Formats: sequence, structure tokens, C-alpha cells
Amino acid sequence: MKYRTPDAPCVELRDGVLAPRIEANRAATIPASLRFCEETHRLDAFRLSWKPGMDWWPHIFWDSDVAKVLEGMARDLRLHPDPAAEARLEELVRLVVSAQQPDGYLNTHFTSVEPEKRWTNLHDWHELYCAGHLIEAAVEHFRATGRRTFLNAACRYADYIGKVFGRGRGKRPGYPGHEEIELALCSLARATGKAKYLRLAAFFVDERGRTPNYFVEKEGWDSWRLRYVQADAPVREQTDAHGHAVRAAYLYCGMADVADATGDRELLDAVLRLERNIATRRMLVTGGIGTSPWGDEAFEGDWHLRTADAYAESCAAIGLALLERRLHAITGDVRHVETLERVLYNAIPAGISLSGDRFFYQNPLVANTDSRFPTERQAWFHCSCCPTNYCRFLPQVGSFLWALADDEVRLLIPAASELHSEGRHLRVSGGYPYDGRVAVEVLEPGNFALSLRIPAWCRRWSARVNGRPVSAKAPGGFLTLRRPWKSGDKVSLRIDMPVEAVRAHDNVADTAGLVALQRGPLVYALESVDNGPGLHRFRISPDNAEVVPATGLPPGTLAIRGRAAILERPGDELYSSAPTTSRPATFTAIPYALWQNRGPSEMRVWLRSDN
Amino acid sequence: MKYRTPDAPCVELRDGVLAPRIEANRAATIPASLRFCEETHRLDAFRLSWKPGMDWWPHIFWDSDVAKVLEGMARDLRLHPDPAAEARLEELVRLVVSAQQPDGYLNTHFTSVEPEKRWTNLHDWHELYCAGHLIEAAVEHFRATGRRTFLNAACRYADYIGKVFGRGRGKRPGYPGHEEIELALCSLARATGKAKYLRLAAFFVDERGRTPNYFVEKEGWDSWRLRYVQADAPVREQTDAHGHAVRAAYLYCGMADVADATGDRELLDAVLRLERNIATRRMLVTGGIGTSPWGDEAFEGDWHLRTADAYAESCAAIGLALLERRLHAITGDVRHVETLERVLYNAIPAGISLSGDRFFYQNPLVANTDSRFPTERQAWFHCSCCPTNYCRFLPQVGSFLWALADDEVRLLIPAASELHSEGRHLRVSGGYPYDGRVAVEVLEPGNFALSLRIPAWCRRWSARVNGRPVSAKAPGGFLTLRRPWKSGDKVSLRIDMPVEAVRAHDNVADTAGLVALQRGPLVYALESVDNGPGLHRFRISPDNAEVVPATGLPPGTLAIRGRAAILERPGDELYSSAPTTSRPATFTAIPYALWQNRGPSEMRVWLRSDN
Repeated sequence: MKYRTPDAPCVELRDGVLAPRIEANRAATIPASLRFCEETHRLDAFRLSWKPGMDWWPHIFWDSDVAKVLEGMARDLRLHPDPAAEARLEELVRLVVSAQQPDGYLNTHFTSVEPEKRWTNLHDWHELYCAGHLIEAAVEHFRATGRRTFLNAACRYADYIGKVFGRGRGKRPGYPGHEEIELALCSLARATGKAKYLRLAAFFVDERGRTPNYFVEKEGWDSWRLRYVQADAPVREQTDAHGHAVRAAYLYCGMADVADATGDRELLDAVLRLERNIATRRMLVTGGIGTSPWGDEAFEGDWHLRTADAYAESCAAIGLALLERRLHAITGDVRHVETLERVLYNAIPAGISLSGDRFFYQNPLVANTDSRFPTERQAWFHCSCCPTNYCRFLPQVGSFLWALADDEVRLLIPAASELHSEGRHLRVSGGYPYDGRVAVEVLEPGNFALSLRIPAWCRRWSARVNGRPVSAKAPGGFLTLRRPWKSGDKVSLRIDMPVEAVRAHDNVADTAGLVALQRGPLVYALESVDNGPGLHRFRISPDNAEVVPATGLPPGTLAIRGRAAILERPGDELYSSAPTTSRPATFTAIPYALWQNRGPSEMRVWLRSDN
Repeated sequence: MKYRTPDAPCVELRDGVLAPRIEANRAATIPASLRFCEETHRLDAFRLSWKPGMDWWPHIFWDSDVAKVLEGMARDLRLHPDPAAEARLEELVRLVVSAQQPDGYLNTHFTSVEPEKRWTNLHDWHELYCAGHLIEAAVEHFRATGRRTFLNAACRYADYIGKVFGRGRGKRPGYPGHEEIELALCSLARATGKAKYLRLAAFFVDERGRTPNYFVEKEGWDSWRLRYVQADAPVREQTDAHGHAVRAAYLYCGMADVADATGDRELLDAVLRLERNIATRRMLVTGGIGTSPWGDEAFEGDWHLRTADAYAESCAAIGLALLERRLHAITGDVRHVETLERVLYNAIPAGISLSGDRFFYQNPLVANTDSRFPTERQAWFHCSCCPTNYCRFLPQVGSFLWALADDEVRLLIPAASELHSEGRHLRVSGGYPYDGRVAVEVLEPGNFALSLRIPAWCRRWSARVNGRPVSAKAPGGFLTLRRPWKSGDKVSLRIDMPVEAVRAHDNVADTAGLVALQRGPLVYALESVDNGPGLHRFRISPDNAEVVPATGLPPGTLAIRGRAAILERPGDELYSSAPTTSRPATFTAIPYALWQNRGPSEMRVWLRSDN
């Protein structure tokens, strides 16, 4: 690993975009998710009191929702100590741990409902996935409280799993249909210092897709289903990101963790290849992935980036952010930060309301009466992976902004924040991502390189140190200022962020001739709330568009306003060769991440333009 | 009924577009379908010899495929008497009739495989649908041969169905989940003169969707499934075309038949309302219907006419043609001919290769590497409704061109043909649909109105009678020339057919800003065979496009050629604000109906244009 990720509590966010999301998570997302876990009996399930005939039935991956909320509570507790929240967390941890079986097994469905089916359908039944989330929660609980109850339970569970699975005699050479446990075991290995968990993670990673194929031999799945769960070939041989996008992203995180911990260059190359396939071929402009709208939440082929009906599950976007953070840390390659920033400011926040208690699952790029997917955020889902993923993701956001090496501090994303970690203490102020003027103040002296990322979307920038212009270049995407820093030293960076009309790759058929508006890292969208209905009729003029305060959105939010033509084909005939007419209009675009925060609305990202 | 439809054998087609399809049906489609019915055991099924454990299993609507081939054979026999074909038909009829049970029931699946399930799932199991196709086949067999074996079997079956279903005591108030029997019973009533079959048809039409709802009460279906089979409300109260498009089209045909036979104005108004909803809101530019790509083959909402992934099942297109022919006959409204012509020259022929033995099921409007549906025609399908529908549809094509009233002959579609029916004998020559110069010669004298349709897509036309210009107008879409006609009288009509750039209604979001090329009744498409790959990059200039002979397609086929720009966004970045470049090119479009007859190809109907 070239760079260490600062622990989230070491980064205090002070910006107007990310920090309020963390607050909303604390105030609304976590409490609402807990309430739904209670109301839907997800908590009751851990009492193991379910009996046939009861009006609820533990869902096959209910445990993961509870685990993700607990992980979120633990992570948030570290940002914001709160005895009441801690007491509630302890109570829930006791409940969860109480469900552990004498052999270490901990899964409500396969304890209460179908105990005879334990480990019989690894492909579909999410046991190892749930185990992974419990392990992650336990590690974060330990980090937050120092108490080992949950961590020890997780170790017992992982030890039991290690007895069931593996290459040895009497063990099952199986692996999860939904990956997650790989990265969780790496986390457990780091938290406990026990290499056996890393070895188990490496087993799950490397056994996957090997011949003879476990899913084929033991469970009778066909080749389509193997691709769907990334088990069609050994992971080191896979070259394109395919199948269910959340599974893929979690697997790739696990691969990265194992590769990093073991120094396995071949495995690292494999995951880098898969990531490049996503970032250069299979990712929506918002950073959303898994575009197939057919309910399989899967990647489609290279450059098949549809607009209408595209799927971009919130969890998949979160998975991509987790992956890119790891890959930057391991390689230092700025391209991972570019993708991280894209998904962090667009696809991820779009999935949750500003209030923190309403969610999109699919995150459409177009909303109108044709939409197949919901165009208003929902409070909860039957398959409620997304809300609980926000619970645990949002408290981590601070850790995405900075990276540390022995003699270097990297500012990856210059949102207003204060880093205080490993003896480095710096403060960033400014209005990023709406304002490209960034001020960095050194608060603790030290001899290190301060590297400021110059975003790939930025075409003009300048920097000053203590008021004096810097003439350095930014090779590899970073302006690196190496010197003995004194307290009070000030670096200012000015990143130009004009309104840009972005086009997709020439091979993307669905967006041919269309543009997406982007300013800085933010992708913009038209909403009918601002523009009236019939957004498909707009042809915008991106040139000379100006930036204005947005209406009805948080203070500081900037909208893009410019000229447009509204094209109309007169007449009521369904098909006609009558020429179109056009009337001049104004368009107003708001950040895509903030759409549907002002009531129901049409929305459109990709637009016709005269550009 | 205002107009009578001429019997197909009374219209001899002599054009270069439709006539060869009838030949190909005789030479290839019918023999290939028979062969597949044999190979897949669809014929064996009528031997009722299936036993559990055999390597085939009668498919729940296999009978309908056999029936449709028999109907096609009978219809074709009338166009082209052939003792060998007739002998084969007789043999097959004997086989089918031999499977009839003592009580009149005739269904292979529910006789051999699951006899205990007879009539237990009307919603899904297609028994009444299969019965309808058997009845239609029997009627056509009788018409073709004068022999009553099959017809009598059909009557026995219909009589038995009449004992099982109805409003009386001890009868089931049920109706089919897949409509078809309604129109078949009307046909049986006409063939036998027996009003009881019409009454049974009327029962099935009017019981549908009534409260208490049979599907809810007896089979437990939910409201989505009711809409899917048009049973969510009484048919007279339905206002939008919804659910599975083939079912809908067949139902509407049955409604039209019942309304016409009984003079039921309310029922007629209902079906006209539903047809208007299709023709003005829910039909692709090719005439394809049932656009939902989600496997339900269903209508989507008003103006939701997607391009990529749109479904347009061949059978649904055929159903629409059958409906429009009926509605023109009943009302004389030319609008039904407009839609009929659109679907007859575009969606329907696109579903079958020129060779007659390869088929599309979904009929995409875009083909490229993104396509979800097959982009090459297939020889057969597991659900093989489409190939066998062509078998029976194509021999009827002649009957779509003309309509007769006591004192009027209407030329609906001026393809080269000769009508000889009810004492009217006229010949049309010319190169329609590629050439708008139409010559009509009277071959038998008579005092009647000759009405020539002036297509709605035509903006300039002129006519002459025996060389003298006609100054009449064409109110209601027809130029009506009423006089005592002598043998040898000649009417010439010149219909301008420039290349038109057609746009969809302003409310259609998916095609906003795009045009489809149309010339005469033919919708055109770009194929990569002519234009090279990457059709999404083309921006065409429809103005000054010219018409040229098409390459590699039947003689007489005209292509459209014109200027285009190929727009390219340079660079390999997935998203970039680099300006697009453009290079001049030529585009060549061929009739959509003929695409994929020259090997695999990209294809695109809706195009960017500078117009």
C-alpha cells in the first residue's frame, strides 16, 4: 500500500455538501433504518423465536440489514460520541450476539426457519454475505467502543466458517454467491492481527470460478448464473466486469485487500484490469454501475450505457467508491480518485434524500411518465440493502478526502475539512464542489510533501504558497509541494470549473448526439420543477450558460442557467412529416444528486444541445 | 358492415412486394413449419400417445401451432390448388380430428398429460385459445375443400364448450386468458349459419371483466394480471389498449365481429375507441404494437414508444392488421386502412425473411451490439406462434387490398392485383409501393363507384379517367368515380411519394429530435451492410435525398440515398467535453421490412437529422 487512508474520525468535514449528509445520517437515516428493522421484525429475528405460522418470516438476508445499521452506528459513534446512542448500540449488539449458536454459526434464517438448509445454496442464499456484514459490524463496534463482545463473536463465527470451508479434507471448496465476506475477513485480520482470517479471505477469492466449479458440481447452476456471480472463471483470469454489480464491487474490494495484504501483484493486476473496464467502459456519467434494467442489477457490455431505464443501484455505487479508495491507496494512481469523486458527488448522494430518510434503489437518469422505476424516493424496500448501506457508508466519507504516506499528505478531494492524523494537521476551507477556490492551511509543522489533486476535469488551475505563485506542474494529477511546513503556512489553489458539456464515448449509442452538463465534479440535470414538463423537448445551449443560486435547495447550491430552444412537432398525429417549430426558453439545471428533493418531478441528465 | 372483404382467392396479387411473400409462404414457410411441428412432436401430440417419462411433453399451446399451419394450408390451397398439398392437408386433418374426445373436447395437453386440469386455469393455459385456432382451421378447411369432417368436429367442440361455459345454471362464467375463440366462433357462425356460435362468442366477449370477476373469484389472480388479459373491466368500459398485445388485438377482432353481426353500436364504439388509442398513441412507426420489452409483450402507456429494446411481436402486428381490415369493413373509415397499410408493409413483413423460413419474434427498431433481442431471424421458437401465424396470414393478403359494397368498389391499397368478385372485375397495374403511378383497368362493365384511396401520407396526387384529368376531391380519403363503367375503361392515379422525414408526436420522449425516413407506405432503415458500423453516429440530411435501386435485394426494391454527417467524439475517455468532429458521408436506407436479408447487420430506424 502506497497510501494510508485516514481513519474517518481524523477528518472533520466542514463543507456544505458532504457534512450535512453525515448529519442527516445520524439524525434520520440510522434512526429510520432501526425503526424499519424493528417494524419488519428484522430485530426480532435475532431472538430466534420465529415459529411456522407467524406473520413474519426472516428474510434470507435480513441479518445483513441489521449488521449494516450496527456498523453505521459504530462508525457514527466515533465521529460523534453519544452515550444514549452507545447504549442502544450495546443493547443491539447483545441481541445479535445472543443468536450465535454453540458452534459459532450466526444466521437467523438458517437457525430459526430452515436449519436443515445451512450452506446448501451458497449461490443464492446469502449466508456468507450476511456473515461478512456481521464481521464488518463487529470490527467497527470494537473500534468504536474497545469492547470485544461482538468482535469475539465474529471471530468465533469466522473460525467456524474456516472449519467448514477450505481446500482441506472434509471441507467444502465453496464460496459465496454474493461476495462480501472476503473484504470483511481482511478487515477482521487487520483488527485482530490474525493472519488466518486473511488466509480464509484469500481462499474465498481464489477458489472462486476454479474448475471443477463448486456451483456447477455441488449446486447445479448454469453458465449464465456463473457469470452473474463472477464465478465463471478464476478471478485472476477475469478481464471484464460482469454480473451483479454489487457482488462484483465487493469481490473486487476483497481482491484488492488480499492483494495488498499479501503483496500479490497478479491479483492486484486482475482487479486493476476489472476496475479499468468499469471506469472506461461500463459506468454511467454519474458513476452509477450495473446498468441492466432487467432486474438483474448487472453490468452490460462495453459502452452499453443506456439512459432511459438504466439501473444504477445505490449499493453498487457505494461499492465502487469503496473499491476506488482502496485502489488509490494501493497504487497512488489518481485515476481512482477521479472515479471516486464522480460517484461520491453524483450517484451516491442521488440515492438518498437530503432529509436522509428517503431512498432510490435504481437511480434513474431520466424520470418521466415512461419511467419503469420509481421516480420518487421510498422510505424502505423489501430488499432494503440501500438504506442500511447509507447508514454505514456516510460516516466514512471523511476518509475519502485525504491519503497519507510517510512523507506525503495527499488532498484527494478538496472539500472543506480538517485532517488531524499521524501528526499531520491541515485545514481546507472553501466552497468546493461549487467553488474551485481552495485554501489549505498547515496547522502543525512538518517536513512533508503536500500533494493537491488537480482534477482531470479541470483544464486551468493556479496555486500560491503564502501568496506567492507556484509554477510547478502537476504530473500524475497532483501538484506536489515539498518543503518544511510551518504552522500557518497557507496554500491556495484555484481550480477553474466552467460549465462543461460532456459527451460519452463515441461507441455509446444511446447518448449519441446528447450532452450532460457538468461543472466541477457535479453532473447536472434538468428537473421539470424548474423547467416545466416535457424535458425531452429541450435543446440547450451550453455555451454562455451561467451559474446562479438554486431555488429551494440548500444555501450555496448552484444551478446552471442558460438559453434553450423548446422544439415542438405540431399536430396530434402520431407520425407526421410536419416540420418542427422551436421557441426560445431558458433552462435551469441543478446537481443531479439533489433531484427529487423538491417534490415529484420529471428529470433528465442527457440532453440535446446546439453544441 | 358497410363493406365486404373480398375472399382472398378473388384477388390475384401481381406486385413485386406482397405476391412473392405468398409464394415464399407456400414454398418455404408452410413446409418448414410442418417440418418443425413434426420434429418437435407437435403432430405426434395428436396421436395422444404421450406417456410420462417420454422425452417430449405436449406444450400447453402446441395445438394452436398445428391449427395455424392447417389454416394456412387450407387458405393457400384456395389460392393455388395442388392435389399433393390437399392430400397432406387431409391426412393432417384426420390426425387432428382423431384426437377429439367423445364429449367433443379436443386438446392434446389436457387429454394426454394433465387431463385432470381441464378448464382449471383459463387465465394461463390457453385451452380456449387453442380451441379458437382449431375452429378457424376447420372453417378454412371446409371453405377450401367443401368437406365437413373438420368443420363438424369443430362444431362438436364448440357445442361442448357451449355446454361448459355460459351464464346458465351449472355453467362456468369463464372466458379465455388468451382471446381468440371469440373471433373464431363468429367465423364458425358465418360458415355454418348457426347463431348459437355467435351467441357463445358474445358471451365470451361480454362476460370478460365483469364483476364478480371469474379470474379473481375462481382462479385467484391479482389486478395486474387482470389488466394483462384485458379482464380488468367489462370490455365495453375499456378505454385504453392494455395488456398483452396479441390477446388485445384478437379480443378487439372478436368484439368487432360480434358488434357487426349483432348491430351492437355500443360494443362497436368500444372497439373503435380502443383502436384509436392504439393507432394514435401506442403504435410504433412500423405499425408494431405491444412495445414493453419486459417479456410481457404488452402495451405501454400513451406515447411511450421506445426505440431501443421495443417489442413489436409479429403476431401482434398480424392481429392489428386483422382488426383494421374488420374496422374498415364495418365503418368505411379510411383511417383503418392507413394503419392497415402501415403494418402490412412494415411490421408484418419485417418479421419474416424474404426466403420465408426465418423469423423475428420481437422485431427491433434498432440492432447493434447493445440489442437485447435477437438481431438475426430464427428458424423456429420454443413459443413458436409467429412462424405459424405467417402460414395463415400471408394467403389472406389479397383480401386486404379491396373492399366491396353493392354499388362501390374500393381500392384500399393499390398494389398490382386483379379483383374478380361479385361481378366486379378490375385490374391494377404499376409498381406500388415503390411507384406512385397506378393504373386501374375495368375488365367487366358495371354501374358502380370506383373509389381510390388517396393515402394520408400523400400530399399531392392527380387522376385521369381514360386519359382525361379528374378534378374531383377525395373527401374521406377516397377519390370516388361513379359512372357506368365499360370494359377497357382506364383510370390512372398518380400519388406523389417523395422521401419524407417523419417525426413522432411531440409527447414521445424517446424519439425527440429524431426522424424516421418514409417513402410512400414504406418506413426505411439504415443497415450497416450499406453504411458501415456505428449507425448511431450518422446525422442524415433528408432533404435532396434520392431514390436508387437497392443492392442485394429483390429487383425493383428502391433504396434512399442522401448526404449525412458522421459525428465523432474524439478520444478514448468514457466522458469528455472534447468537441465532436464531423465528416461528410452518404447514407443509404432500405425498407425496414427487408432488413437482415443480407446477413447480420446493425440497423436503425430513428435517426438524427439536420432537418
